Amino acid sequence: MMKYNFKDDYSEGCHPHILEMLSRTNFEQQDAYGDDKYSRKAKQIIKEKLRHKPADIFFVSGGTQANLIIISSILKPHESVIAAHTGHVNTYEAGAIEATGHKINAIESLDGKINPENIQTVLDKHNIIPHMVKPKMVYISNSTEIGSIYKKSELLALSEFCQNNNLFLFMDGARLGTALSAKENDLSLSDIAKLTDVFYIGGTKNGALIGEAIVISNKKLQEDFGYQLKQKGALLSKGRLLGIQFLELFKDDLFFDLAQHANQMALKLVQDIQNLGYTFLIKPETNQIFPVFPNKLINRLEKKYGFHIWKKTDQNHSAIRLVTSWATKETAINEFLLDLEKIAKT
Amino acid sequence: MMKYNFKDDYSEGCHPHILEMLSRTNFEQQDAYGDDKYSRKAKQIIKEKLRHKPADIFFVSGGTQANLIIISSILKPHESVIAAHTGHVNTYEAGAIEATGHKINAIESLDGKINPENIQTVLDKHNIIPHMVKPKMVYISNSTEIGSIYKKSELLALSEFCQNNNLFLFMDGARLGTALSAKENDLSLSDIAKLTDVFYIGGTKNGALIGEAIVISNKKLQEDFGYQLKQKGALLSKGRLLGIQFLELFKDDLFFDLAQHANQMALKLVQDIQNLGYTFLIKPETNQIFPVFPNKLINRLEKKYGFHIWKKTDQNHSAIRLVTSWATKETAINEFLLDLEKIAKT
Amino acid sequence: MMKYNFKDDYSEGCHPHILEMLSRTNFEQQDAYGDDKYSRKAKQIIKEKLRHKPADIFFVSGGTQANLIIISSILKPHESVIAAHTGHVNTYEAGAIEATGHKINAIESLDGKINPENIQTVLDKHNIIPHMVKPKMVYISNSTEIGSIYKKSELLALSEFCQNNNLFLFMDGARLGTALSAKENDLSLSDIAKLTDVFYIGGTKNGALIGEAIVISNKKLQEDFGYQLKQKGALLSKGRLLGIQFLELFKDDLFFDLAQHANQMALKLVQDIQNLGYTFLIKPETNQIFPVFPNKLINRLEKKYGFHIWKKTDQNHSAIRLVTSWATKETAINEFLLDLEKIAKT
Amino acid sequence: MMKYNFKDDYSEGCHPHILEMLSRTNFEQQDAYGDDKYSRKAKQIIKEKLRHKPADIFFVSGGTQANLIIISSILKPHESVIAAHTGHVNTYEAGAIEATGHKINAIESLDGKINPENIQTVLDKHNIIPHMVKPKMVYISNSTEIGSIYKKSELLALSEFCQNNNLFLFMDGARLGTALSAKENDLSLSDIAKLTDVFYIGGTKNGALIGEAIVISNKKLQEDFGYQLKQKGALLSKGRLLGIQFLELFKDDLFFDLAQHANQMALKLVQDIQNLGYTFLIKPETNQIFPVFPNKLINRLEKKYGFHIWKKTDQNHSAIRLVTSWATKETAINEFLLDLEKIAKT
Repeated sequence: MMKYNFKDDYSEGCHPHILEMLSRTNFEQQDAYGDDKYSRKAKQIIKEKLRHKPADIFFVSGGTQANLIIISSILKPHESVIAAHTGHVNTYEAGAIEATGHKINAIESLDGKINPENIQTVLDKHNIIPHMVKPKMVYISNSTEIGSIYKKSELLALSEFCQNNNLFLFMDGARLGTALSAKENDLSLSDIAKLTDVFYIGGTKNGALIGEAIVISNKKLQEDFGYQLKQKGALLSKGRLLGIQFLELFKDDLFFDLAQHANQMALKLVQDIQNLGYTFLIKPETNQIFPVFPNKLINRLEKKYGFHIWKKTDQNHSAIRLVTSWATKETAINEFLLDLEKIAKT
Repeated sequence: MMKYNFKDDYSEGCHPHILEMLSRTNFEQQDAYGDDKYSRKAKQIIKEKLRHKPADIFFVSGGTQANLIIISSILKPHESVIAAHTGHVNTYEAGAIEATGHKINAIESLDGKINPENIQTVLDKHNIIPHMVKPKMVYISNSTEIGSIYKKSELLALSEFCQNNNLFLFMDGARLGTALSAKENDLSLSDIAKLTDVFYIGGTKNGALIGEAIVISNKKLQEDFGYQLKQKGALLSKGRLLGIQFLELFKDDLFFDLAQHANQMALKLVQDIQNLGYTFLIKPETNQIFPVFPNKLINRLEKKYGFHIWKKTDQNHSAIRLVTSWATKETAINEFLLDLEKIAKT
Repeated sequence: MMKYNFKDDYSEGCHPHILEMLSRTNFEQQDAYGDDKYSRKAKQIIKEKLRHKPADIFFVSGGTQANLIIISSILKPHESVIAAHTGHVNTYEAGAIEATGHKINAIESLDGKINPENIQTVLDKHNIIPHMVKPKMVYISNSTEIGSIYKKSELLALSEFCQNNNLFLFMDGARLGTALSAKENDLSLSDIAKLTDVFYIGGTKNGALIGEAIVISNKKLQEDFGYQLKQKGALLSKGRLLGIQFLELFKDDLFFDLAQHANQMALKLVQDIQNLGYTFLIKPETNQIFPVFPNKLINRLEKKYGFHIWKKTDQNHSAIRLVTSWATKETAINEFLLDLEKIAKT
Repeated sequence: MMKYNFKDDYSEGCHPHILEMLSRTNFEQQDAYGDDKYSRKAKQIIKEKLRHKPADIFFVSGGTQANLIIISSILKPHESVIAAHTGHVNTYEAGAIEATGHKINAIESLDGKINPENIQTVLDKHNIIPHMVKPKMVYISNSTEIGSIYKKSELLALSEFCQNNNLFLFMDGARLGTALSAKENDLSLSDIAKLTDVFYIGGTKNGALIGEAIVISNKKLQEDFGYQLKQKGALLSKGRLLGIQFLELFKDDLFFDLAQHANQMALKLVQDIQNLGYTFLIKPETNQIFPVFPNKLINRLEKKYGFHIWKKTDQNHSAIRLVTSWATKETAINEFLLDLEKIAKT
């Protein structure tokens, strides 16, 4: 028997509409390297949603690829990027950013987010010129690597601080869908386009096979960006594969529907788990939740379900990570909750 | 009216079997990052064809990505790679190899190939230690960027030379399918696995949406290779996308059937073009052919067909590049030849 | 009136013996790039002191240069270096290490040192393969950036741990002289050669104009090292400049005499400062000391002496950094102490 | 018996004035990292000679270091530098430029120089955007690696071409002294400051122990340059060592006197060699000359004199390289010519 997997949001393939569109257009001859009509159309539709004229859009395959290309294309050799210590660039990218030559100034963060005060501390520590790196970019993730989200007021504060301090603001949106579909979210794609210099919209974790749409709002950062894609091996000859996916995701707002589904499935878990009297390591906001369970309970759940054990919280308890997605079946959620209730009562 | 495109071998999507398999398996939950059962199965089937036990296989998205990861993972900072000046790494990769820190020692080559004598010349010129880079790898493409192929005797000579001179031999196989399916080919996948340290099998230009299968034959070069994939943004979370494609391409030798089709379509063009009395800039061997036509004829062909004008050969003539592929329709070939004949006669 | 400077150990030129030797040999024709007879002789004398046959020696101009060349020549792209957060590579090198592609895993450290337990913590956190960097080297400084030193037992423990965990051990010896001449030191050059894979002996901060002597004990790390020097711009054509300096410093143990002088001057400061009832931020062991003074006292000292204010310790007190050197005059120490006493009493 | 060495222009130490000044100022306390009064004074004097207000000056230790820092600080990741194939950056720097991530577009050149026509050819070949690197800088050496020099008209043409084509013009002046002191030279320091974006004045090969003075004329390229020095290990803590040397070289035009001496010694060789009926591989213009001699004659000369055999010119003849310098003794020239005459007659 296969375990049902709550490990991540990329265990399944993609939304069926995408496969249908790939099939329907398969034998059309299209221009290569992103000049196909689907990529052009997808970019146009996304641009309309951004309501930010200067924005330009580039498709790449994945998040680490997006991060390393964006950062290395913007920073000069002596410039560094500020990030939460939990930031993807600082942890699970095998040194991708440093491999392009740049230091990451990591900030300890409990909720995966950073704020102007944190950043000021880093700036204050880097005032011995020219002996230290020069922090020049702020990297944030929304939703963060531990499921939290930025509120509009927080992003406004960051944006203003960055402008006042000559810093570029970059939002990793590998999980932007669930952030923008979260119950407490008050940000729109358009807000983000206006408040950041560059961000990306993650397809891979929200119903695409592969694909992130990089949005460069700051015109100065757009020049020659295509070269960076090519140089880092990110310019797909069959760019249609990315264009078709983003067209399907955005032409009828499927992107938001899918993210909302993921969040709803998580919310259902959260409510029942709370009703059973359990707490969470981090306040649940999106599709990654971290309930704290007795170890014995975890052991029994593990026999039927796949998930990561995140952290010991005391001798007898641990937090686990449950991730829902666009593909999570409500029946699976129900079954999990029934099982949880049963185990909890014994 | 859309022009029929002979510009490249990546204008269409992918072989329908691949889309069918993607659909059939779409909702299965699979492990991420290439640990899915399709990637494992695909690797096993390819390994059987290699008949070379030490070989290990890694899937990536594209050729430039494969080249930059392979080269940067193998060479030390002061080591360089020797290539034909027409080599993809030396031309159309926007400096991808240099961006990882390594010089390319380019050799002028008429037919896109290099031989031990050429390489010896480079070695002889790099004998002022430690003032010059140390050539440490030989990069060849098969088929080459201009359609030629390596014969077994040539590869044997290169392999032996490299071993005797402590050089790694790396074959870029972005178009390996058409090389191995060429009329004059006498190499097998297994030969290549045994005679090179590392090579890759190109899917993108032979019926896949994306994907190259890197084969590392030399055990010393395999250690920690997965880290390089991750660091360079090449490790897809939905690795199944690559696994499924290579499984479809190799489980029933579809890969070779598709390449053979591409070559046959090219051969048909070659024979008729020769019958009409035209010559070729480079001896046609695979799916890229370079007929020399009067400029007037080219102008008229251009109205109906897409192709690259490669090079002026004299005042009134130019070579064009025609590329056939797994997806080229025989009817299109026939129509092109009829049109050519008509124009030629007027 | 010029202030007397206790800011650093590189405010003066060099020991006069060096200038004399430079003058005496000035018009001799010598081979370039370190093949001159003085470089060869200096290496031979240092090797004798190392009593470690496999060691090889290379001269470079400065500490940051030594650090970046050593680290980049040893690590593969996905490998990282572990260091105290106070380590020079992590602070005052403007991202030199990251610029060569490598992440630094910084460990919070109160005394500037790290131990096996710290390192184990880093290793434990980097177990998600291949998603994270692979820590492969441990960087320590002796004496450290805040004046502390490693005892033999500590270095033995680190050396053993590194060997057991397949890590390279690298000691930054920009201030090795004062470490080995410290009162509580029980290490010798020979111990260090045997217990580390690579280290260097700092000349610049101990009586040379420029120059660090890199000692590579681990034979595997020596191959092609000369290329790295050349590639990073560190191979001086007039290598005699480095050779002559190290010959003068080591032929009669001037190197140790100078370091001992620096330490003695510091000790004199320490004793009197303690007698006056003041404490130190960090236990004084070498030529960098960090007394804690009332801010008012500091303000008055600053009028006559140059030094860095290191850190506020409370509302009314701060630690300052006083650095002595091979060139510090005992009369200057005496005068400083008299002034201090005077101010302290008012 | 030691052979007298015509191998290079860095076999001796430095001009005695430099050693005297180092001694005289040795125990002065000076600010570190180039803020000492000698560095400031030297920069001021050089600036006056430049008569180009925007220029800023930075001292580094050597030519390869200057080249790699200048190029990597100016170019973006996808940009390349155009150079003669004989250019130092393309040959004897062990891949230093590529190690910072940039491709060199090498132009075949017989006389070591390049011109607008050559550069246009490179630009024409790099028009497939974004698949190829973007040439963005032109690197020239004056005097070149084979002793030739740029005339004012040539530099004007290059300068104008670069401005019209958005290219930066960088002159490697490791041997600028002999260029500016050549008989046929019509350029001044001031001309060069106005016609290039950046260049450097080589001390190492013209009487200094180490040291090159980088002059950045283009204000846009000056920002944050100090960080690059630090990051690449080039910022000497005892910057006085560089400042004092350039002060001595420029305060009374010693720099030009020394270069003139080198050229005169070469001219003496040239005239006598011509009188004996021998020819030169490259037209002699500065302190590197390439006479063509019978191999038998070369064998006999080699017993008493050190020089490089540059190139076979036919079965029985070869060109050798003779280099004179600021330190070449006229008596040595006379003796060499006597010996040559004797051998030639036998």
